[in-house]
Amino acid sequence: MTLPGKTVERLSEYRRTLLECLKEKRNFIYSHDIAARLHITAVQVRRDLMLIGYSSVQRKGYDIRELIEKIGTVIDSEETVNVAIIGIGNLGRAVAGYFKGKRSKLNLVASFDTDPQKVNKVISGVKCYPYNDLEKMVRELDIRITILTVPADYAVEIAEDVVRLGIKGILNYTTIPLNVPSWVYLEEYDMITSIEKVAYFVKENTIGKQ
Amino acid sequence: MTLPGKTVERLSEYRRTLLECLKEKRNFIYSHDIAARLHITAVQVRRDLMLIGYSSVQRKGYDIRELIEKIGTVIDSEETVNVAIIGIGNLGRAVAGYFKGKRSKLNLVASFDTDPQKVNKVISGVKCYPYNDLEKMVRELDIRITILTVPADYAVEIAEDVVRLGIKGILNYTTIPLNVPSWVYLEEYDMITSIEKVAYFVKENTIGKQ
Repeated sequence: MTLPGKTVERLSEYRRTLLECLKEKRNFIYSHDIAARLHITAVQVRRDLMLIGYSSVQRKGYDIRELIEKIGTVIDSEETVNVAIIGIGNLGRAVAGYFKGKRSKLNLVASFDTDPQKVNKVISGVKCYPYNDLEKMVRELDIRITILTVPADYAVEIAEDVVRLGIKGILNYTTIPLNVPSWVYLEEYDMITSIEKVAYFVKENTIGKQ
Repeated sequence: MTLPGKTVERLSEYRRTLLECLKEKRNFIYSHDIAARLHITAVQVRRDLMLIGYSSVQRKGYDIRELIEKIGTVIDSEETVNVAIIGIGNLGRAVAGYFKGKRSKLNLVASFDTDPQKVNKVISGVKCYPYNDLEKMVRELDIRITILTVPADYAVEIAEDVVRLGIKGILNYTTIPLNVPSWVYLEEYDMITSIEKVAYFVKENTIGKQ
């Protein structure tokens, strides 16, 4: 059974929260505690965990290590999945930074850029290859997922290249919405939308109070 | 009437799409064309636009300029809203870059950092102030929204400072979920969740095909 996208997002967030709890030297946690940290309801947490077949609640709550492992068996691949970042400017470097020290089955193996100042260097902990070598390196490094952090003008062309090379997962951080075939999973995020959303609710809140 | 968050996100995306169409020298667009560019249904587009009271469809579609203006009257504030970025590392600089050349009521007026190499310099087109001057500059520059792009360890403390200074809108790009009072609008985004989501659907797709 394939889970809905929103459920997968929450499972990823539960795991992140649980990993934080481990750092705090905790061993058990209640659903309402996970829920409070993520601003959702405890019912939602319990429903999601039942959906992945986890129900071994003890008097002191869920066993944190066990639950982290269970979430992993559901959302992670069995083998490590290799990821590449295309475009290693500020955003690309920020994304690379997120991978550092993360316990994850996702392995950042390469970045690509056209800038001669960047290629063949290690940037933010990952080797930058010339974009022209994309096809060769996708094969050699078995890259399965690409993250697009290129300027908007290149987004469409690069997405076409990536799809042609058989990449099945794309995370698009450019401001251009992309079209990909149905067998490619595309996730898109545009910062300006989030900022405009915050501004809207700030405005509504202010009006509401006047 | 306050619109649901998802509607606001889509209106922001419609406007972005319409602005792209203007660049392509187009003057009119059909709902199904907007929908196709954003991977949603034409029914959804028409429903959202009816919700904001826009229904003046002509034979050749919506008047692009008119619709951009209409969306602006709904989601934008009447006056420009001043925004600041806290933490001007790679991610902060990437976010600053998004503001450049955007036609928007959102005005990036400052960034803040503790790094002596960064403060009192213009970085990615915006002046970086010492974090210690946050209170003073929030007043002087009338900052209403802050974007948090600081390392995770500082997130909670900085969110507390920002709330105390009366900021009503926070966009949190750290990996730490925050707690804010009910009068503050908080939007959170964690990249790892998006990447894990892509990986999950790539995995499911592959299994489905075997």
